[in-house]
Amino acid sequence: MTRKKSGKGEMSRSRLMQAAASEFAANGYHRTKVSDIVRRAGLTQAAFYLYFPSKEMLHQELMDVFFKKLWELSDAGRKVTPLKGWEVRGRMRENLLDLFRFFAEMPELTAIVLTQAPEGEDLHRKLAQIVAANLRSNQEAGHVRADLAVEVTAESIVAMLYRLTLRFLLTGEKTAEQLADEAVALLAFGMLQA
Amino acid sequence: MTRKKSGKGEMSRSRLMQAAASEFAANGYHRTKVSDIVRRAGLTQAAFYLYFPSKEMLHQELMDVFFKKLWELSDAGRKVTPLKGWEVRGRMRENLLDLFRFFAEMPELTAIVLTQAPEGEDLHRKLAQIVAANLRSNQEAGHVRADLAVEVTAESIVAMLYRLTLRFLLTGEKTAEQLADEAVALLAFGMLQA
Repeated sequence: MTRKKSGKGEMSRSRLMQAAASEFAANGYHRTKVSDIVRRAGLTQAAFYLYFPSKEMLHQELMDVFFKKLWELSDAGRKVTPLKGWEVRGRMRENLLDLFRFFAEMPELTAIVLTQAPEGEDLHRKLAQIVAANLRSNQEAGHVRADLAVEVTAESIVAMLYRLTLRFLLTGEKTAEQLADEAVALLAFGMLQA
Repeated sequence: MTRKKSGKGEMSRSRLMQAAASEFAANGYHRTKVSDIVRRAGLTQAAFYLYFPSKEMLHQELMDVFFKKLWELSDAGRKVTPLKGWEVRGRMRENLLDLFRFFAEMPELTAIVLTQAPEGEDLHRKLAQIVAANLRSNQEAGHVRADLAVEVTAESIVAMLYRLTLRFLLTGEKTAEQLADEAVALLAFGMLQA
């Protein structure tokens, strides 16, 4: 880990993490060997062990980085609370855009995390709880309609974001920007002519 | 099949179908034996073969009945097209209620169909296509906002209905009526104060 700070070392380390994410996604964690990871990264087995004590530790670090960012992004609804009414829709769009951009940058890990069973159910519920807490604050702040059922809305939002990510973003059919625009159009004011 | 029309025969037949749906859901199609089905139905093996030539045919019939109804319900958006604007929200709620009631009546088959992989992806896409076609008609009729992206909206609706069904309806946490009310509140006019 002493090499962690140097520029070249940081690049090799990052290449190993990217390569590992790709290999885990393609072949599963258990079937992936350190030799597969270093081959994809264009590095040597010796280089691998300069940065990571084991495949297990690399995997753990990948997951830690991913989830730290995911919790932060799923909690972005709190940024809405102090805003003026006319700023809310724009902030919602930014929040969605940040999330879709993150998923687009980490497509392999995103695919693994969003489709894994049965842990996927726990994750979905935890994300919905975070979204629900911010919905409540934003109802109190007068931004979110008071007649909305918070739990059902939060679960719906999470389900929708999972699906749009898997169906359009990771397939390359739509960009993060397109999805943020199209999702906010539905979420902000719904389907019907007022 | 000559017994199909009589009242008592129809009841036994229906009991066998219900029992089979429960067994398939609990233990999977392949591990379920005809003897399991008749035990749950409280009937004899001989009775089974009066109504069904094989486990395979019973399974096929269960699926045929389920999907016939599912296609019909997923196409309910067409009932919106000829309405007056003020009737649309109520019809949306009825459409959702019909769907949730159907899922609640067939919980075992619903769980199998909504969670099966990889066929589940084809089903999700097919349902989204049906919803999308009606969204387009309802945009032309002036009921659905013209700025909505039809594909993303259709995929979002299907994902939301899957999730609400699995998370709240099949767990018994909410009734079909509650879910229809809460889902239409979000879908019709979105999250934000106008």
